[in-house]
Amino acid sequence: MSEDRTARLLIRCADRPGIVAAVSGFLYRHGANITELDQHSTDPSGGRFFMRLEFQTPGMDLARESLARAFEDEVAQRLGMDWRLSYAAQRPRMAILASAQDHAALELLWRHSRGELKVEIPCLISNHDTLRAAAASFDVTFHHVPWQDAGQRAAAEARMTELLEGRADFLVLARYMRILSAEFVARWPNRIINIHHSFLPAFAGADPYRQAHERGVKIIGATAHYVTAALDEGPIIEQDTARVSHSDELDALRRLGRDLERQVLARAVRWHVEDRIIVDGNKTIVFA
Amino acid sequence: MSEDRTARLLIRCADRPGIVAAVSGFLYRHGANITELDQHSTDPSGGRFFMRLEFQTPGMDLARESLARAFEDEVAQRLGMDWRLSYAAQRPRMAILASAQDHAALELLWRHSRGELKVEIPCLISNHDTLRAAAASFDVTFHHVPWQDAGQRAAAEARMTELLEGRADFLVLARYMRILSAEFVARWPNRIINIHHSFLPAFAGADPYRQAHERGVKIIGATAHYVTAALDEGPIIEQDTARVSHSDELDALRRLGRDLERQVLARAVRWHVEDRIIVDGNKTIVFA
Amino acid sequence: MSEDRTARLLIRCADRPGIVAAVSGFLYRHGANITELDQHSTDPSGGRFFMRLEFQTPGMDLARESLARAFEDEVAQRLGMDWRLSYAAQRPRMAILASAQDHAALELLWRHSRGELKVEIPCLISNHDTLRAAAASFDVTFHHVPWQDAGQRAAAEARMTELLEGRADFLVLARYMRILSAEFVARWPNRIINIHHSFLPAFAGADPYRQAHERGVKIIGATAHYVTAALDEGPIIEQDTARVSHSDELDALRRLGRDLERQVLARAVRWHVEDRIIVDGNKTIVFA
Amino acid sequence: MSEDRTARLLIRCADRPGIVAAVSGFLYRHGANITELDQHSTDPSGGRFFMRLEFQTPGMDLARESLARAFEDEVAQRLGMDWRLSYAAQRPRMAILASAQDHAALELLWRHSRGELKVEIPCLISNHDTLRAAAASFDVTFHHVPWQDAGQRAAAEARMTELLEGRADFLVLARYMRILSAEFVARWPNRIINIHHSFLPAFAGADPYRQAHERGVKIIGATAHYVTAALDEGPIIEQDTARVSHSDELDALRRLGRDLERQVLARAVRWHVEDRIIVDGNKTIVFA
Repeated sequence: MSEDRTARLLIRCADRPGIVAAVSGFLYRHGANITELDQHSTDPSGGRFFMRLEFQTPGMDLARESLARAFEDEVAQRLGMDWRLSYAAQRPRMAILASAQDHAALELLWRHSRGELKVEIPCLISNHDTLRAAAASFDVTFHHVPWQDAGQRAAAEARMTELLEGRADFLVLARYMRILSAEFVARWPNRIINIHHSFLPAFAGADPYRQAHERGVKIIGATAHYVTAALDEGPIIEQDTARVSHSDELDALRRLGRDLERQVLARAVRWHVEDRIIVDGNKTIVFA
Repeated sequence: MSEDRTARLLIRCADRPGIVAAVSGFLYRHGANITELDQHSTDPSGGRFFMRLEFQTPGMDLARESLARAFEDEVAQRLGMDWRLSYAAQRPRMAILASAQDHAALELLWRHSRGELKVEIPCLISNHDTLRAAAASFDVTFHHVPWQDAGQRAAAEARMTELLEGRADFLVLARYMRILSAEFVARWPNRIINIHHSFLPAFAGADPYRQAHERGVKIIGATAHYVTAALDEGPIIEQDTARVSHSDELDALRRLGRDLERQVLARAVRWHVEDRIIVDGNKTIVFA
Repeated sequence: MSEDRTARLLIRCADRPGIVAAVSGFLYRHGANITELDQHSTDPSGGRFFMRLEFQTPGMDLARESLARAFEDEVAQRLGMDWRLSYAAQRPRMAILASAQDHAALELLWRHSRGELKVEIPCLISNHDTLRAAAASFDVTFHHVPWQDAGQRAAAEARMTELLEGRADFLVLARYMRILSAEFVARWPNRIINIHHSFLPAFAGADPYRQAHERGVKIIGATAHYVTAALDEGPIIEQDTARVSHSDELDALRRLGRDLERQVLARAVRWHVEDRIIVDGNKTIVFA
Repeated sequence: MSEDRTARLLIRCADRPGIVAAVSGFLYRHGANITELDQHSTDPSGGRFFMRLEFQTPGMDLARESLARAFEDEVAQRLGMDWRLSYAAQRPRMAILASAQDHAALELLWRHSRGELKVEIPCLISNHDTLRAAAASFDVTFHHVPWQDAGQRAAAEARMTELLEGRADFLVLARYMRILSAEFVARWPNRIINIHHSFLPAFAGADPYRQAHERGVKIIGATAHYVTAALDEGPIIEQDTARVSHSDELDALRRLGRDLERQVLARAVRWHVEDRIIVDGNKTIVFA
């Protein structure tokens, strides 16, 4: 499918009969061709309904703004829909925040350079200076925003807000080892993706591989989630696991875990970029 | 969802704009409530289009036969559709064919007894007599149809046709170690499910675990597929794999493989029973 | 390897140079042929050392009792070893405790009947009467020991102790939905295996699939562990996970989870039976 | 374990009683401390025996050369052993051959830069010029050795032999899309690792993702193997698989496959570097 011509419609509303007919009828009347359609209902009687459509626009009789207005007037208002229309050609702007470890950030930079992630990357911000050269090798702007102790948080967040506000559509915490304030998080609702290095809700908090090693688990995991004010408790987007054994010391868990983190974060980010995720309370619907 | 009220519609046609609108509009007009909808297109320009809908019937203004006739007249004919309507309450009749090994057959019998497989089981047929007691313990009719060498095939197939024709909707080869004739297979097009004990197309033919052991693979697999005249080459429904090592001798591969076979076959059968599979040439679309 | 002739030696001691040489030299001098050898050290300087050997006895110059005495005198005493010698031909006696759900218990009974689990099964005990027929179909003695509320615990445990003491070597809780007292557990140290239906330490306690569904995880798990006085906190033997999505309702999690539980429990029990597990504090060394 | 002090001994011989006692006794007498020991026998009566030991050298009474000589005289000769002694501190030299695709080569370069792969990288050779900048960003020497058609093979191989002979200990084909001659391969027996983008033996030869897509498999795979004169038939080192569905077009298989290839190749190379692989005919023993 040509990226130029592909539009996406995300819908959330109360479930009731006729939603699919109303939406698909509207698109057909205006000349769109639906190429993907996913839906989910929490309960057909009184539940919440979610839908994602991908459609091709070349045959349409409406320009972008008119299409949005027409959809609101002809369909959304009547059915009480929350909805969002986006175009694959409009690449979202993804800022990356990282600390000293490079694996998660590099994975995103590399996938972007290969064309796997359809985003713009306005900048990579780190509280360490170690990723400067890596960012440069991918032609990405690097900002060093130091933040070593709690006292520096306010200043660091102010500086980051300055760098990001109006310049990024969403943020990725690629092993960013600082805890953002509730105020900062509130500026980016469901628009900050974090990779936590455990199979949440197991081993929330600090040093999860050490916790896992001490508990003697036989499987480790990684979790990508949207960041909320409650640490490690936001809506989970994606998880994966890997087998370990008694002979895997803490270093081995960290090494195996890095591979999981890279994969899980990359999938979560791709789904976010392709508008495949709808947040429903503290859960996600992922139309992967 | 109450099983009594759930209907399923499977559709195959040339892709073109307006299919979703036509089908969902039809169902809405007649009072159905769509609860699942999956679609797939091989290519929006000139490709083949596939759709599966599950909908609730209590509010409908048409009885079963009228519904089918109306769908044909109002939608299917105009859009050139192959389609099939089924009702969750009408349980398909699944006959099981097995040989001496019991694991695959028992897995199906046990899942049926737990209510996981919504089928009737008219009989279990084996070319050995060893599964008689197991069938009895699940209250399933057992038929011993001996077939030891090639000369007995015609008689065995004739006897099985007698036992199955008009009494079964589909057959499952649960490690049935005899090769059915093209004529027999032709009576059950896309209605015989086989479990092959390898990751097809690797290790087709006899004794795949021995082949795998000799090749020194690090992963073994199992494959459920529809049976066609070409041995081990029919449309693949489901596969899964498990890790092995140099220390796993042939017996260990067989033991680990049995667990895979049980899981893979059970999933394939459930999807078939729930009308989640559409065959497209030598491939399957699985709306799992 | 013929089961009759296979012996196993499990060793635990402080790590120091010369342990492998001492043990393998001893076995060689007395005519044994080592066929498996696994070792693990928590730290070569001052750590704990663990070893498992499997060896063939036909060429040995010592009978069983003399062998044990000679090992103690010639090797174990000098190196301060905890050790245990067992013979594959001496099948341990495994009692199964279950409640109303049959899948975990049936899996063990079926694997036993196929020869996959080299145990004797003195009895299956349940606080419900529903598994009586299943036990009978596998020729296993069934005891109904009712226990519906807390007030019945003492009586139920007393009855079970009567049935098990001297008749079982270890117990398997195959989805036994009652919490055993610390006193009961203390009679069977590291000899009660439980299957918990979550990826511990996530979702300990009651109704873990409901907890998992509410948290919106993308992976579910199952955990086999030895039972200790602290609920769901004993040493983990084995875990596995399966992918789920937003469309999997609670029932689907339970269905997918049952398959995990069966696999994970079967593996843990087999390793226990084959003397492949050494408990080290609250962790296990598993020489699988 | 400090890398400086760690030695590894790989042994292959006919199985017979007393091997472990002889080897461990020798090491103990000379002051070594065994920290890892793995063994494998194809058959205790008349089979082939394989062993890998890792031991710490600080307490030893022999220097490197004397140790090798003493082992040959005191143990290996008598037991008819093939053996190899190596030291973790002596990093093998790994040359990388790649074509236009960068993912497999970059993965190795990145893991090396992180310290995960204990090798020297004398050079990266490609038949395209596209990886020059990537090599430079990791400070690795790049050689462009063009080879577009069959007529250029002899010249290209001659040039590569010039660049590699005496400068590399083993080669990694990181998606090198040219077929090396039997003569070239013969110079590097069991010292060329290839990553094939399918689950071998399925889909050997060209364009395996296209073959997989056409066959309609539900799982794709990747295979790392040693290169022999017979294309795609050398001893398999490692494999892994990933789930796909009917909705994954050829491009998606390639994208998912790249992730598999990176992981599988990285594991195979690490095991080779840590002397964890013994080739036995057309199979590998991997003491992972």
